[in-house]
Amino acid sequence: MKLVVAVVQDKDSHALAQALIAKGYRATKLASTGGFLRSGNTTFLIGVDDAHVDAVLALIEETCRRRTQLAPPSAMSGETESFAPYPVEVPVGGATVFVLPVDRFVHL
Amino acid sequence: MKLVVAVVQDKDSHALAQALIAKGYRATKLASTGGFLRSGNTTFLIGVDDAHVDAVLALIEETCRRRTQLAPPSAMSGETESFAPYPVEVPVGGATVFVLPVDRFVHL
Amino acid sequence: MKLVVAVVQDKDSHALAQALIAKGYRATKLASTGGFLRSGNTTFLIGVDDAHVDAVLALIEETCRRRTQLAPPSAMSGETESFAPYPVEVPVGGATVFVLPVDRFVHL
Ligand code: NI
Ligand code: NI
Ligand code: NI
Repeated sequence: MKLVVAVVQDKDSHALAQALIAKGYRATKLASTGGFLRSGNTTFLIGVDDAHVDAVLALIEETCRRRTQLAPPSAMSGETESFAPYPVEVPVGGATVFVLPVDRFVHL
Repeated sequence: MKLVVAVVQDKDSHALAQALIAKGYRATKLASTGGFLRSGNTTFLIGVDDAHVDAVLALIEETCRRRTQLAPPSAMSGETESFAPYPVEVPVGGATVFVLPVDRFVHL
Repeated sequence: MKLVVAVVQDKDSHALAQALIAKGYRATKLASTGGFLRSGNTTFLIGVDDAHVDAVLALIEETCRRRTQLAPPSAMSGETESFAPYPVEVPVGGATVFVLPVDRFVHL
């Protein structure tokens, strides 16, 4: 048994939660802020058999990996001077993941 | 020294906190949601000597174990059609507990 | 790699966050309450190379150690009878720190 501690962006946390549930993994979410991934992140605690750690890491990568996203022109600013008449790529996502050893696991 | 990470239902968290304090154990509570135990849970971090792990697990079982509770008829619904004129047993409680090894413990 | 879990008083958490950032350490903060340090604490998760654990513990001690602080007379109470016409020393700070082993660390 391992405890996977995954810090992901808030905007990816719903997709990760859904992916974990769909595969039958059990997790809890902790409200967290700043640090590893700027403001707005969520920390998942995921209890998983040793044999499934790679599968969980793959799910996290699939749903949360660092990528770019097209931001619509309207998201740019409130100033007409800096208005960009085309979409702009902004970086989103990313995850910091610790796999912790577990001495004992109890489900009451 | 171990770090006991216990995810329990919100409704049991006060009883567990009181039981830990009464026995002199020190814990902190993290706001958490969903996952292991549906919505409304609390994650306890409990630092404990190896020799006391079993005692802490027993306290968690005592205060948080999965059990049924009689729900009063009024709790059933707002529809008169489905009103049950007798109490109904509903499942409550439960806990997911990880005992983590600790390399170093420092109290400043 | 280690995962340093540090529970500190809210009033010290800004100073600790700033000190970690200044030294290039990466951390996330979890909202937490009560327990190890009465009400109002913050739990930091700090991922750090083994070689830097002592430096991080020193930063925590520097910014969060138990100390006394002079409370102004006005902070004493609302009762004129118990008004103290001089500042009073009150204890503040303190930290409870667990250094956890990490089996795997992944940054996506
Ligand atoms: Ni399997
Ligand atoms: Ni003892
Ligand atoms: Ni170095």
